Amino acid sequence: MLDKKIIASLQQISGKDQVLTDKADLICYSYDATQKQYLPDVVVHPSCAKEISQIMKLANENKIPVFPRGAGTGFTGGSVPTAGGIVLGLTRFDKILDIDEENLIATIEPGVVTADFQKTVEKVGLFYPPDPASLKVSTMGGNVAECAGGPRCVKYGVTKDYIIGLEIVTPTGDVIQTGGPTMKGVVGYDLTKLMCGSEGTLAVITKIIVKLLPKPEAKKTMLVMFGSIDGAAQAVSAIIRGKIIPTTLEFLDARTLDCVRQATDLDVPDAAQAVLLIEVDGDREFLDKQVTRISEIIQPLGVVETRIAETAEESEALWQIRRSVSASLRQVNPDKFNEDICVPRSKVPEMIRKIDAIADKYKIPIVNFGHAGDGNIHVNIMVDGKVDGDYEKAEKAIVEVFEGALALGGTMSGEHGVGIMKAPFIPLELGGAVIDYMKTIKKALDPNNILNPGKIFPSDA
Amino acid sequence: MLDKKIIASLQQISGKDQVLTDKADLICYSYDATQKQYLPDVVVHPSCAKEISQIMKLANENKIPVFPRGAGTGFTGGSVPTAGGIVLGLTRFDKILDIDEENLIATIEPGVVTADFQKTVEKVGLFYPPDPASLKVSTMGGNVAECAGGPRCVKYGVTKDYIIGLEIVTPTGDVIQTGGPTMKGVVGYDLTKLMCGSEGTLAVITKIIVKLLPKPEAKKTMLVMFGSIDGAAQAVSAIIRGKIIPTTLEFLDARTLDCVRQATDLDVPDAAQAVLLIEVDGDREFLDKQVTRISEIIQPLGVVETRIAETAEESEALWQIRRSVSASLRQVNPDKFNEDICVPRSKVPEMIRKIDAIADKYKIPIVNFGHAGDGNIHVNIMVDGKVDGDYEKAEKAIVEVFEGALALGGTMSGEHGVGIMKAPFIPLELGGAVIDYMKTIKKALDPNNILNPGKIFPSDA
Repeated sequence: MLDKKIIASLQQISGKDQVLTDKADLICYSYDATQKQYLPDVVVHPSCAKEISQIMKLANENKIPVFPRGAGTGFTGGSVPTAGGIVLGLTRFDKILDIDEENLIATIEPGVVTADFQKTVEKVGLFYPPDPASLKVSTMGGNVAECAGGPRCVKYGVTKDYIIGLEIVTPTGDVIQTGGPTMKGVVGYDLTKLMCGSEGTLAVITKIIVKLLPKPEAKKTMLVMFGSIDGAAQAVSAIIRGKIIPTTLEFLDARTLDCVRQATDLDVPDAAQAVLLIEVDGDREFLDKQVTRISEIIQPLGVVETRIAETAEESEALWQIRRSVSASLRQVNPDKFNEDICVPRSKVPEMIRKIDAIADKYKIPIVNFGHAGDGNIHVNIMVDGKVDGDYEKAEKAIVEVFEGALALGGTMSGEHGVGIMKAPFIPLELGGAVIDYMKTIKKALDPNNILNPGKIFPSDA
Repeated sequence: MLDKKIIASLQQISGKDQVLTDKADLICYSYDATQKQYLPDVVVHPSCAKEISQIMKLANENKIPVFPRGAGTGFTGGSVPTAGGIVLGLTRFDKILDIDEENLIATIEPGVVTADFQKTVEKVGLFYPPDPASLKVSTMGGNVAECAGGPRCVKYGVTKDYIIGLEIVTPTGDVIQTGGPTMKGVVGYDLTKLMCGSEGTLAVITKIIVKLLPKPEAKKTMLVMFGSIDGAAQAVSAIIRGKIIPTTLEFLDARTLDCVRQATDLDVPDAAQAVLLIEVDGDREFLDKQVTRISEIIQPLGVVETRIAETAEESEALWQIRRSVSASLRQVNPDKFNEDICVPRSKVPEMIRKIDAIADKYKIPIVNFGHAGDGNIHVNIMVDGKVDGDYEKAEKAIVEVFEGALALGGTMSGEHGVGIMKAPFIPLELGGAVIDYMKTIKKALDPNNILNPGKIFPSDA
C-alpha cells in the first residue's frame, strides 16, 4: 500500500479525478491479454509529459514502481503491474496532432488507436502499413513499445521502420526529444529505435513522429488451398526465391482449418490441408502481372483451389477465413498458449515438421498459422486447463518449440515481445553477455529500477 | 608512447606482421577525408573477433584508447586516433560470408567494400540500396558505424534500414551477437540499430547480417533543368505531394552548375539555374507512367530542358553532371567546408533562401547540392585558405547554417555523422538532457572510455 502522502501528491500533479484507488477501478488495470493479474496500488491518468515527469520524479524519490499502460492488449504481460505501485494510464494522450502531407509524416500521441490513425491518414491518400491483429483496440504507444508487426510486414516492415522521432519521459523524469521530422539524421545515438521494442522499460512515450507512405493504388488478394502443408511451405519459399515480395503471405495449417470448419460455416473444402492468403499491392496493371506470376510459381505444388478477389468485397470475403482463426481457436480451446516464434523464411517447412514432432511427443495438439512470408509462426498449444498435467506438458513443449526455432537461426518472439511470459526463457536465445549488456543500459538509465520493473529480463538486478 | 610490453602483447595476439609502429606506417592511419591528422601509437590488423576481444581487454587493463578504422573515408573524423593509442584496422575482415537467396539476406565482414558487395548481390538478382558517394572505397563496417546514406535513400532508406544483425566486440571485450537472420525479432533491446550510427563508440563490428531486396526490373533517369532554384525546389515538393517517391531526387544549384561548367566540358546550358536528377525504378511499364506523371507535375515550374535516358548508357551520361560535382567543387576550391544538413523535404526552398542570405552576409560563396528528395543538402562553404579571415568567417557561417536548419525542424547531419568536426556544435541540436542520456549509455558500456573516445560528444566525461 502506498502512503497517503503519495496519493495526495499524485492528485496534486494530475487532479483528483485522474487518480484511481478503488479496488473495482484497480482491477480494470490489473491484466492484459495474457490474463495474468496483478493489482496496482494506484492508477493515474496524466494529461501531459510534464505531469509524467513530475510523477517519475516522485516515484524515484520514493522508489515506487511505475507501469506505463496503453490499451492493455499485449500478449506477454508487458504492461501488467507486477509489483504494485503506479499504473500510468496514457489514454488521455489520444490526439493526432498533425498530418503533414508535404513531408509524408504525422505527429501523434501514444494513446491513439492504431486503426483510427490508419484510417485518418488513408483519407488523405497516405499509408501507415503496420497492422497488428489488435489494431482496432491497441494504441500506437503500445505498438511502438512492443514494436508490433502484422501481416503486411512481409513487404513493409514492422512498427520501428516507421518511427522517426519521439518525445519521451526518461525514468528519472527528463522530457526529451529523440530523432525528428527529417528522413535522415545521424547526430548522436539512435534513441528512437532503442525505444522501439524496449517494452516501456527505458522511457514513457508521450509523442510519436511517424513516417508515412503514399497509399498504394490498388491491391489484389488470392486465397490458395493446398493438399499439404509442405506444398504451402514450398510455395512461400518459391515466391520469395522468385524475387516477389507480396504485401501479405499468411498461412493456416490443417489443424487451424479444422478449427475454422468447426467454429464457422465458411467454405473450406476437406481436401484443403493448408491455406496461403496472398496479397499484393501497388500499381493496378502491375498487380495482374504479379498474380499471374505467383500462380505459375505455385501451380506445381499441389494446389487444390485458388480464389482470386476482383473487388474489395471479394477480398474481404477471402480474408474472412484468416480473420476467423483467433476466435475459432479460442472457441475450440479457450486455454491455449499462443507463441510467436520467427525463423528465416526458408526454414518454415522444417520448423513445422519440428512442431509436429513435438506435438506427437507430448500428445498435445499444436495449431500453426501466421505470417509465413517473414517466417513468423503463431504456435498455438491446445492445452485443456481441465486436464491434469496438460499445463506442465505444454510448458515443456513450448521450451522445445523455442529451442527448435533457435536451432534454425530463429527467435522466440517475432512480434509479441518478452514481457513476463518469456522472460524466464530469454537465456535460451541471448547469451549471458548480451543480457548483461542490455541490463547495463537499463541500470544506467533507470538506476532505481522503477520503470516497468520485472519485464524482459529473467530476474532484475 | 606505449610501453614495449603492450606492443609485445599486441604482437602476441595478432602476429608480428600485423602490428605497425614505424612512423611512415602510422601516418597512413592518421587521417580521414577531413584531413585532420592525429598520429596513433600503433596500428594492429586483427584477423578475428577473438583477437579484438583480447585487444579490448588489454586496452582496458592499461587504459589505452582504441580507434576502429575501416577505409578512413569519413567526413567528420569518426575514425581518426585523436588520442594516440591503438588503431584497430579492419581491412582483413573482407569476406562476403554468405548470400542467402532463399531468405534474401547476406552475412558479411565489415571490411567488405560497399560497391563490391552491391555488385556481388546484383549478380544473383538481389539489391542492397544504400549508395553513399564513397561506395567504391568505403567499407560496410564504416557505413554501419556512420549509418551512411546516399541518393537512393529517398525511396529505400538508409544503411540502418538494412542491418538486421551484428556480431560485435563490446568495449570491455565480450563478443556478442545482436539481432539475427529473421525479418522480425523483439527479444530484448534492439542493439543492432543502436550500433548503427554510433560511430564506433559502443562496439567494434565484426560481422554484419544484411537484409536484401529483389533487384528492381528496370530504372529510368531524367535530368531536368530549371530556370531558377525556386522552380526546382517547388518541383521536389510537388512530386512528393503527388504521392510519388522516386528512387533518387538529386538537386544542383546555380553555383554548383557554374563549378561544373568551369571544371568540365559537360553540356549545361546557361539558362539552367538549377538541375534535378530524377530516377525511378521498378516494373518496366510502370516506369513510363511515372516519368509521364512527373513531367506533367513539374512542367509549370519553369523547366528549361528535360533529358530522359532510354538506355543504361544514356542514364550514365545524365549522371555525369551529378557525379562530376564533388571533383568540380574541389577543383574550383580545394579548401571548401562540406556540411550535410537535413530538413523536412518541404523546407528545402526556405533553407536554400536562408543559406543564400548567410552567403551574402559573410560574402562567402556557398554552393548547394544533394539529396533534395529527403531534404538532405550538401552545403559547401567555399573558403579560400589563402585569404586571411576566411576560415573564421566560414565557421560563423556554418553555425548560422546549422541554426537555420534546426529552426526548420532539421538536423545538422543527415549522413556524415558527428565525429570530431560537429561535436562542439551538438548542444545546438540536442538538449543537455539528451546528451546526458546518450553519455550515460556510453559511460555504462565503456566505463574506461577507451573505445573511440572524443567522438560525438563535445567533451568526454
